Amino acid sequence: MAKTNPGNFFEDFELGAELVHAVPRTVTEGDQALYVALTGDRFPLHCSAEFARSLGFERETVNDLLTFHMVFGKTVNDVSLNAVANLGYAGLRFLRPVYPGDTLRSVSKVVGKKENSSGKTGVVWVRTTGTNQRGEMVLEYYRWVMVHKRDPETPTGAKDIPEMPAEVAVSELVVPEGLDLSRYQSWPSGGAAFWDDYEVGERIDHVDGMTIEESEHMLATRLYQNTAKVHFNAHAMESSRFGKRLMYGGHVISVVRALSFNGMENTLAILAFNGGAHANPTFAGDTLYAWSEILDKQPLPGRDDCGALRARLVGVKNADPTQEEIPLKVEKDGKKRYHPNVVLDLDYWLLMPTA
Amino acid sequence: MAKTNPGNFFEDFELGAELVHAVPRTVTEGDQALYVALTGDRFPLHCSAEFARSLGFERETVNDLLTFHMVFGKTVNDVSLNAVANLGYAGLRFLRPVYPGDTLRSVSKVVGKKENSSGKTGVVWVRTTGTNQRGEMVLEYYRWVMVHKRDPETPTGAKDIPEMPAEVAVSELVVPEGLDLSRYQSWPSGGAAFWDDYEVGERIDHVDGMTIEESEHMLATRLYQNTAKVHFNAHAMESSRFGKRLMYGGHVISVVRALSFNGMENTLAILAFNGGAHANPTFAGDTLYAWSEILDKQPLPGRDDCGALRARLVGVKNADPTQEEIPLKVEKDGKKRYHPNVVLDLDYWLLMPTA
Amino acid sequence: MAKTNPGNFFEDFELGAELVHAVPRTVTEGDQALYVALTGDRFPLHCSAEFARSLGFERETVNDLLTFHMVFGKTVNDVSLNAVANLGYAGLRFLRPVYPGDTLRSVSKVVGKKENSSGKTGVVWVRTTGTNQRGEMVLEYYRWVMVHKRDPETPTGAKDIPEMPAEVAVSELVVPEGLDLSRYQSWPSGGAAFWDDYEVGERIDHVDGMTIEESEHMLATRLYQNTAKVHFNAHAMESSRFGKRLMYGGHVISVVRALSFNGMENTLAILAFNGGAHANPTFAGDTLYAWSEILDKQPLPGRDDCGALRARLVGVKNADPTQEEIPLKVEKDGKKRYHPNVVLDLDYWLLMPTA
Repeated sequence: MAKTNPGNFFEDFELGAELVHAVPRTVTEGDQALYVALTGDRFPLHCSAEFARSLGFERETVNDLLTFHMVFGKTVNDVSLNAVANLGYAGLRFLRPVYPGDTLRSVSKVVGKKENSSGKTGVVWVRTTGTNQRGEMVLEYYRWVMVHKRDPETPTGAKDIPEMPAEVAVSELVVPEGLDLSRYQSWPSGGAAFWDDYEVGERIDHVDGMTIEESEHMLATRLYQNTAKVHFNAHAMESSRFGKRLMYGGHVISVVRALSFNGMENTLAILAFNGGAHANPTFAGDTLYAWSEILDKQPLPGRDDCGALRARLVGVKNADPTQEEIPLKVEKDGKKRYHPNVVLDLDYWLLMPTA
Repeated sequence: MAKTNPGNFFEDFELGAELVHAVPRTVTEGDQALYVALTGDRFPLHCSAEFARSLGFERETVNDLLTFHMVFGKTVNDVSLNAVANLGYAGLRFLRPVYPGDTLRSVSKVVGKKENSSGKTGVVWVRTTGTNQRGEMVLEYYRWVMVHKRDPETPTGAKDIPEMPAEVAVSELVVPEGLDLSRYQSWPSGGAAFWDDYEVGERIDHVDGMTIEESEHMLATRLYQNTAKVHFNAHAMESSRFGKRLMYGGHVISVVRALSFNGMENTLAILAFNGGAHANPTFAGDTLYAWSEILDKQPLPGRDDCGALRARLVGVKNADPTQEEIPLKVEKDGKKRYHPNVVLDLDYWLLMPTA
Repeated sequence: MAKTNPGNFFEDFELGAELVHAVPRTVTEGDQALYVALTGDRFPLHCSAEFARSLGFERETVNDLLTFHMVFGKTVNDVSLNAVANLGYAGLRFLRPVYPGDTLRSVSKVVGKKENSSGKTGVVWVRTTGTNQRGEMVLEYYRWVMVHKRDPETPTGAKDIPEMPAEVAVSELVVPEGLDLSRYQSWPSGGAAFWDDYEVGERIDHVDGMTIEESEHMLATRLYQNTAKVHFNAHAMESSRFGKRLMYGGHVISVVRALSFNGMENTLAILAFNGGAHANPTFAGDTLYAWSEILDKQPLPGRDDCGALRARLVGVKNADPTQEEIPLKVEKDGKKRYHPNVVLDLDYWLLMPTA
């Protein structure tokens, strides 16, 4: 009997099947502290029990991205261990606050699969949900990956392509239950700007830069119990096309998001990801910078104390966008491609007090 | 009055004396999170309060090796600050679960001492026990080290050589009190193999590799408050025979053990170490791989829901044992020696559900 | 509306104004564990709930320096983001124990400002207080920094120079409320020397050396949510006069203080800083050593079970003061300057049991 997990191949994914992922994880104060130490996160809702209680929460909440990494990390072993490429995300929504002490589990349902014309690979679509110890959903998202076929010689005929949401509609955004902004103060965040102050089309340069070391991205990725081999094994990666370890894209998101605090301090939560791309790989030693572009702003049904802000969060490596112009995309061989220094292009919905 | 601790010399160890080690340590959720981040540990008993409770535990337990490192770390200052060599371990048994919030202390009793013929050094044997805040023993082991004599000119005549257990008998293995496997499920570990599925002589290659950085082994070793100088001082180690810092062997055990999750996911606990060797030194930048060989399997008295598995856990550096053959030992100058890439050879007893 | 914080310039500081600093921070077990892992701290009051309770505390307390870093870190964004130089500290007193679970906030009052003759910069003095969730002060200090003027052309006429305390008087030292030494035992610290055993003029070499990596000082500084750019941005620091990241001076204090455990194990708390200097910059890869010189010892009003010890704590890089003589200062160009290997010269008051 084979003991080790070889990962799933294209043929192993059955349409409609549910993959219950190991390992359930109790998120603790220890994870919270490490998250701050690894990313520089300063959003006060995750740092101060007092601030959180003043807004109707039980105590400080777990950073939305830490929740995402925990839920996502569990899926790697079943979904993407044999992935050729991570093709996309869609319809990611945060549904409920997570507190230190909550235990998270992840389940993915196969919602689509399509064999590629080469016969060597196929695309698998899953809907993943993260659930707490009471069975309440805290997070859901769609993801699609290209995976190897076990047997390139035998066609499977799979051609079930699901429709992915192009964006998360405002009506589907979930404001954390019990959120009470009647006592909201801005000194805990230190930010002077609110939902009303941001304009569609506005660009905010987040000024600061953060260099990342090998040990830092590995500590983060192990904390999330993400087992993708490319992040940890310098010996094996020597013979890869990069010649070295690749940083977990989620750590890039977290660091860039933490940088965005400077200029978007009153953000209360990430409500949803509409979509995003890891535009270029990031390696240890890279310094990350960030800017945001306001794409849309919408009132939230039944609330006049907070609104939704749609922003494009851009991460740039080894070039300071306040010092030199870094276009998001450049023309190369007649095609628009991401600028080689752009590493992240994330389109997301944020929750912010109105004034 | 001398203020700093010069460590104990051979003459300072009195047969029968008890060394009560500083510093007692409350193990917390913070230590747990760091242990995951530093080693990649995924055994669900230490990650999920819900899983732990379903088996009769109060909450998630502290990884056995984290308990070991905490108990062992305290002994360094008194036992091995002047050690020439760590000669061996024997009879190491885990006796009781440790929970976040428990406070550990360590006491070592000198159970043997023998002067070497050179007159410059001697061997000291201690029995160390780790105890929680209720005075309950959680861990015990024998250890022997070669230490410098303070005065090489004056023979001490010491020749008390105690008998060390060659292995821990099955009858001495302690199953955690209250362990209830009637509701055991395998999705939390993700492993399909149980005690019944492992065969004596079987070898499991654990597939993954993990590179370790200087900051990582130092963070781990400081977390355990282990004060051995060789791990922390690059300036002083420049003139050592290695020219650089040496990784704490315990961190190697932890990482290799974490790698062994892939293929032995349903392991519930380490019950005992029969013995082991740090076969070669490990340095920052090394990539660790692991394999296990099943040495024995035995039922446990009074239990049909779980059994004991005796395994040899082997750690290898900078060579992937699934890609090239790495024999445990090789012949050199007419002697069997460990292969130069083998860094750990640990013989231990594991607890696993029967099916 | 500008969204990002450009930091305050000299003209922005109004005499008497109160700066309420973002971000309030609940200190947790996670922060405690990271502090041990990053610094090697072993003072048992911060490690063992049992030891702390035996002395009348609720549980293990937060290391005084961790409290300092948390309180100080918050002030950077408002006080020193545009600082040309950190000129000094004075009158720093620890006023009350901090426990995991407490939420800290920082407020700074502008108590002085003086324009420099160049017209380009000025000096600003602040009194900063750290407060817990009950509004009780846990820490206070004075600090003065040189900051850029926004407009070098327009003189401000500011010349309010406050008097800074040259030292903290013994009568102003605060022994933690409820401290009960009647059951004090020394095995938890492992130290044999008490207040009575230290002599004015005595020097204690702390023996051990600790090398610090980039990721370590960045993890520490991010944990404290200190946003000073020089510590994090390798890309920008390439063009600085050092050509690389600079270590947060507070991390140097913490590591050197942790090294001082060897020889001053029975220290119960830091009561106050009289003053100090970051004598030379510290960079990743440097190895820190430490010595202490006893400057004064004084009984504490109303207590015969503990006394105050005034010590100079000296940090040295890349030279072992037990192996080569490192004078604190050397003559250069006719001036006394710090020896180039000296990185810290801290004058502080410690609390220690009398015997």
